This record gives sequence, structure tokens and C-alpha cells, in this order.
Amino acid sequence: MSAQAIGRLNHVGIAVPSIEAGLKVYRDLLGGRVTREPFDLPAQGVRACFVDTPNCQVELIEPLGAESPIAKFIEKNAAGGQHHVCFEVADIHAAKADFEGRGVRVLGEPRIGAHGTLVFFLHPKDMGGTLIEIMETPEGAH
Amino acid sequence: MSAQAIGRLNHVGIAVPSIEAGLKVYRDLLGGRVTREPFDLPAQGVRACFVDTPNCQVELIEPLGAESPIAKFIEKNAAGGQHHVCFEVADIHAAKADFEGRGVRVLGEPRIGAHGTLVFFLHPKDMGGTLIEIMETPEGAH
Repeated sequence: MSAQAIGRLNHVGIAVPSIEAGLKVYRDLLGGRVTREPFDLPAQGVRACFVDTPNCQVELIEPLGAESPIAKFIEKNAAGGQHHVCFEVADIHAAKADFEGRGVRVLGEPRIGAHGTLVFFLHPKDMGGTLIEIMETPEGAH
Repeated sequence: MSAQAIGRLNHVGIAVPSIEAGLKVYRDLLGGRVTREPFDLPAQGVRACFVDTPNCQVELIEPLGAESPIAKFIEKNAAGGQHHVCFEVADIHAAKADFEGRGVRVLGEPRIGAHGTLVFFLHPKDMGGTLIEIMETPEGAH
């Protein structure tokens, strides 16, 4: 039995060489809605843009600056590709303690994410090869 | 303006070396719910298991047989990783005609997918590097 139940899948993170290239796919070809302008997340080294689907979002991220943590990903995957999956939790600090207590490596301290609430990432080597983001549920989001 | 609006994000497809390894992450560590036993999808060369989150699903897929289309993915990513993203559409044939009309390569003819409705995949090179599955909305699913 797990110590916590998974929350909503908030978004799928897709790395793209440019937000414009990503919008051509997720807005123009797939018809997703964009209600918020792209914005910089300097603390995470990315520029981001959310595309809405009826039940969750796609987060397009392009490298911001030469030190961007996704620069290498784009070097290897020039067209872009799936980068991470983000699930919500009710309490970010309880979630961090819970994961660590079960031997899962949390990458750094919780920090403010794209939706204005605290987030952290889990080490892909402890999570079946996938980079998992954990986000405290944004207030009034649902 | 897009000819169609994106439907629900039905699931994120995660390739795993074994369903059991995937369940250790998505059921045991993240607390997702599994309400249906793993099952073989021989037409797609995978064994699959769905893990439920409150708003969509994670589809764990392990290679089924030596000719599995995901065998090479697991060779390159031994621990597994994000494999595809599946969006729903109301009419699979209209969606196919629409994508093809806009120059997006549809991989093969629509075929019965894991939820019993018709699905097809779009060429990652036409979709920003990500393998996108399009699924006709399962009846009574929502």
C-alpha cells in the first residue's frame, strides 16, 4: 500500500527547440488552446507555454540560456520530445518526506514552479526512467 | 485555426522492461490505482497495464515478443521511459483524413486499441519529435 495516492496528472512536459515550433504541433495541428502567453522561468532555465486540453495540459519548454538543463536534451533530440510528467499532490513537504522515506531521490529543494506553487523533481533512475515532477495543487485550479 | 479541437489526454504511454517494474513506480510509489489486470495486445506487440490517476491514465507497455515495436526503445532505455501521448477524438476516420490533408503522416490504418476503439499513430517527425496516438473516445468512458 502506498503512503499517498497520486493526484491529477497536471501536465506532460514536452521539450521543443522553440515554443513556436511546439505551438505549430499542439495548437495548430492538434487544436489545443493557449490562454496564457509564453513566459520565462529563469530559475528552471526554460521558457514555457501551456497548451490546454479538456482534462490537463501540455507544457512546452524551450531552453532558456546556454546553461539550460534541457539544452542537452534538445542537442540529442533536435525536433524535441517528451521530457517529464507532472502529478499533483496536496502537500509538497509531506510528499517530499514520503518519497525520501522510501528511498526515492528528490532533486533539490521544492521551488516555485510554472503554476506558482511549489514543485520538485524525482530522480528518473528511481522512477523507471521517467523524469517525474511533483507539484502542489494550484489553488482554485479545479 | 485548426480543423479540429484536441480531445482529452487519454493516457501517457510509458515503456517499461516489465509491467511489474512499472507497477512498482506508478502503483506502489505514486499510489495510482489498477482496476484491470495486465493484458496482451498482440496486434501492437505489447503487453499493457493501465494505472488510473484522477483525470487520466498511465499506460505501461512492455515488449511482447522479439518483434515488438518497443523492443528497440527498451534496448536504448533499459529502465524504460516516456513512449507516447494519446489524445481522444470523436471520429477517428475524420481525424485521419484531417491530419493527412494537412500533410501529417498517419502510421498505418486505424486498428483496435487498448480501450476497444480505433486508434492510429502519427509520425513523430511530423509532430515535434513525440509519438502521438489518436484514439476514438471509448463509449461510456466519461
